[in-house]
Amino acid sequence: MGEFELIRHYFAAASCARAGDGVALGIGDDCALLALAPGEQMAVSTDTLVAGVHFPQGADPLLLGQRALAVAASDLAAMGASPLGFTLALTLPSFSAQWLQGFATGLDAMAERCGLRLVGGDTTRGPLSLTLTVFGHLPHGLALTRSGARPGDLLCVGGRLGDAAGALPLVLGQRHAEPAVAGPLLAHYWSPLPQFALGQALRGRASAALDISDGLLADCGHIARASKVALRVERERLPVSNALQSLLGLEQAWSAALSGGDDYVLAFTLPPEEETTLRAQGAVFFVIGQASVGEGVTLVDRHGQDITPTIRGYQHFAETP
Amino acid sequence: MGEFELIRHYFAAASCARAGDGVALGIGDDCALLALAPGEQMAVSTDTLVAGVHFPQGADPLLLGQRALAVAASDLAAMGASPLGFTLALTLPSFSAQWLQGFATGLDAMAERCGLRLVGGDTTRGPLSLTLTVFGHLPHGLALTRSGARPGDLLCVGGRLGDAAGALPLVLGQRHAEPAVAGPLLAHYWSPLPQFALGQALRGRASAALDISDGLLADCGHIARASKVALRVERERLPVSNALQSLLGLEQAWSAALSGGDDYVLAFTLPPEEETTLRAQGAVFFVIGQASVGEGVTLVDRHGQDITPTIRGYQHFAETP
Repeated sequence: MGEFELIRHYFAAASCARAGDGVALGIGDDCALLALAPGEQMAVSTDTLVAGVHFPQGADPLLLGQRALAVAASDLAAMGASPLGFTLALTLPSFSAQWLQGFATGLDAMAERCGLRLVGGDTTRGPLSLTLTVFGHLPHGLALTRSGARPGDLLCVGGRLGDAAGALPLVLGQRHAEPAVAGPLLAHYWSPLPQFALGQALRGRASAALDISDGLLADCGHIARASKVALRVERERLPVSNALQSLLGLEQAWSAALSGGDDYVLAFTLPPEEETTLRAQGAVFFVIGQASVGEGVTLVDRHGQDITPTIRGYQHFAETP
Repeated sequence: MGEFELIRHYFAAASCARAGDGVALGIGDDCALLALAPGEQMAVSTDTLVAGVHFPQGADPLLLGQRALAVAASDLAAMGASPLGFTLALTLPSFSAQWLQGFATGLDAMAERCGLRLVGGDTTRGPLSLTLTVFGHLPHGLALTRSGARPGDLLCVGGRLGDAAGALPLVLGQRHAEPAVAGPLLAHYWSPLPQFALGQALRGRASAALDISDGLLADCGHIARASKVALRVERERLPVSNALQSLLGLEQAWSAALSGGDDYVLAFTLPPEEETTLRAQGAVFFVIGQASVGEGVTLVDRHGQDITPTIRGYQHFAETP
């Protein structure tokens, strides 16, 4: 048995690889078999992370395993889907039991947290990269797309913004901060939590949704374009963490919140009459602006003054000029 | 819009990316949405191809696009699934319109041939590699697994063996052959045809099946282990092409048929009483041996003499010692 076949057996033994609801056949045959309840659809998304582009070459494998699955699973949450399973395509330059142990532990922890099962994959030799394809299920016709926002809808986000962008210089070792500041930021970067509960609560209520991966302004641009509306973001309403403010100051924290990527919290539009119902269900979210007739994304200050910056969305760190 | 966003738009415009049966929502949102008919299951498989490991660095992008999808889709055929769709995760070192044009053309041609739709993906910068995740559908309980072979079943293959292994030195430029010989071998290597029709005909008839990717003996070993039977392969019954015999001679052609990888034809076990029915349906296949009580894979000559070689399965070419 070759090393790479050993790796396959290794993942097959992980606790997230056990069979369960919706997984009729898991790892070990030519295909996995997935089942849906009557009236359901399957949501599918694929994400690739490349060493040196999406994470540092020497990244801790446990943190990488956690983050890779969270990043991919966040797309399911953004669609309003319930978690089902995932496949892992892992390309490794060499065999390291220690690396694999760490990676599988992190992957398993996030899989457990998200309720996702490992159903198949491929392991090959080559430059370090990962491709995860995630599967979710949801009732027919209730998926949250980007295209349903209407003038008058509230623009909302499901959590604080900018922490991952604030963490990046710490991840890259370009900057240091005291543990009380660095801790929460690094936790958010390495272990974002896909907002499955919020996404499911938004089914049939939100008019459009996505997860923030490119940066708030860039991602709001996706909703505005797909929905053919204008979106106005009010800067003073942006939720930013105390840790981020301590690290960067308020002005720069806003900047990270607007243009930093990798937050993986949901952004969505909500007809105003849905706000009370949603909060009564226990959903936690922040209203940061509104949709109107028109196009594009505008940033305003507390006086309503247009202060739209010419900041582009986040570029993966190796691509940053 | 960055180069890599352009690439996404480029694939979104490919003809295989149009919506259709089973694809409720294709490229462009956080997830694709796939639907199943009542009583159906979804078959899922993931394959990664890395430049320098699974194909030469300078491979023709059109041929690569064809082959990458065919290799992945073959796992669906082996399960007896009908084709539905696929996601493409493409990692590229740099942007080349010419390369992308060729690759998309090859991918599109194979997608058309297989009846698969591009439903999503990811495009990133990094060392050239591809991960395809393919989706098929089939009636609940009719999937062809590796574990159902019974003593007395016939061992069969769905086509000629060894052509891809024979083609490899031609692909790598280590050997040359006249067009009448090189042509069919290279065609089989670069454009294997997933045996969807055969796989679907085997539903409810074959007791076990897989597609030959590691080499006949190695893959028969997978069936023998999963089914807890012994499998006997009769060397003189191995179907080998005239082109392969011309290139290698009969002895070496058998060797390529037994141990060469990348054939992507189906190997399956069939209760003897099913053979006539299956042939009457127009299925073309070759009986090459039989299952019996025991374990392991044995190769015999025409006198029934055990001539089992100590040949291992195919290793990807960069891993070959």
